[in-house]
Amino acid sequence: MAEIAELAAAVREFSRERDWEQFHDPKSLVLALVGEVGELAELLQWVPADEVVERFAAPDRRARVGEELADVLVYLVCLSDVLGVDLGAAARAKLASSHARFPADDVRGVAPHKP
Amino acid sequence: MAEIAELAAAVREFSRERDWEQFHDPKSLVLALVGEVGELAELLQWVPADEVVERFAAPDRRARVGEELADVLVYLVCLSDVLGVDLGAAARAKLASSHARFPADDVRGVAPHKP
Amino acid sequence: MAEIAELAAAVREFSRERDWEQFHDPKSLVLALVGEVGELAELLQWVPADEVVERFAAPDRRARVGEELADVLVYLVCLSDVLGVDLGAAARAKLASSHARFPADDVRGVAPHKP
Amino acid sequence: MAEIAELAAAVREFSRERDWEQFHDPKSLVLALVGEVGELAELLQWVPADEVVERFAAPDRRARVGEELADVLVYLVCLSDVLGVDLGAAARAKLASSHARFPADDVRGVAPHKP
Repeated sequence: MAEIAELAAAVREFSRERDWEQFHDPKSLVLALVGEVGELAELLQWVPADEVVERFAAPDRRARVGEELADVLVYLVCLSDVLGVDLGAAARAKLASSHARFPADDVRGVAPHKP
Repeated sequence: MAEIAELAAAVREFSRERDWEQFHDPKSLVLALVGEVGELAELLQWVPADEVVERFAAPDRRARVGEELADVLVYLVCLSDVLGVDLGAAARAKLASSHARFPADDVRGVAPHKP
Repeated sequence: MAEIAELAAAVREFSRERDWEQFHDPKSLVLALVGEVGELAELLQWVPADEVVERFAAPDRRARVGEELADVLVYLVCLSDVLGVDLGAAARAKLASSHARFPADDVRGVAPHKP
Repeated sequence: MAEIAELAAAVREFSRERDWEQFHDPKSLVLALVGEVGELAELLQWVPADEVVERFAAPDRRARVGEELADVLVYLVCLSDVLGVDLGAAARAKLASSHARFPADDVRGVAPHKP
């Protein structure tokens, strides 16, 4: 089984064992995801933009930010599972459509901007 | 190669081809992640909590929410890659530690709450 | 002076006294705002949607959620101030334009939805 | 009436006229807030950290970011109102407690960091 589907199955089993599926409606899961994104943001917020990579290169700091990234992924996988979305396939489809939408020769070196 | 590492490699290649790596410092990527989480939230915000799963079960709606979930994953994978974090391994480690932290018999049916 | 401008002045003075203005570039402040929104989300995430108002009606719970709402406002006011935006005026202008954009007779009882 | 309370009253009236209060439970409003914070983040995400203030100093760009800041405020005010929180008072109380928690002489020039 693919890695993301395995993660989804592990999260589902974890929730089922604890009878926590009752809390996992999509809106609650988006809020939980937002909570974890917030913790990630707090970890980086006051570090100067050009020092973040170096600051988090030390093993303990890398492990720390890895935990926050993992928390975001776990809720994202759980939310996708509850919504019946194959997250890995959706990400591959998105990348494929981005290749078509942003031809390399047209956008090289130019950040795509929002209206 | 594992699925998440494959996605990371594909995103890295996509960015490299477009010379977009210059924009991908961690703080900018967290903001991009926040932007995508915002689009996901907007999709669900006014749907009654107990109707979301059903509302997004139709193929076109499921594909639509799948795109937003994919956007979040793509930036999460890109951010992890820039920070040198093995996201799949971090998620498995997190789940393992959650098993220890929340023994099923202690927390069954009770949502863990924040202080 | 209007209330929001007074808050902005108080936050500016607070930052200046601590020599914290150096950390308050807009992107860092958006991340700080995201962190506070995350704390707000965590407070509500597992409460059933139709029980939140009642759950937070008790004085201690209302004070608790009030603190999180206040944290969001403080960073929003600080960010607006750094960007030279008159936040109170911008909010009034936004409400005025919403009146024109959503005529009451056209949208009554129908949630505006995102594309 | 104070400015924030006036805004709250105007938002309440706006919602009431459109029969939109039915959509405004707290969890839905946090999601709407997240959506607006996401739009704000998207506006700034690819601008280099030290160029944001200058980039948004032009009148049309300042007005644009002002709209996004206003959207965040409007939902924050609406959410506070639904929860029965006096947002202005809560923000003043928060600032007062921050003065006590971060004595200027102890923290000067040092960003408070999260554990």
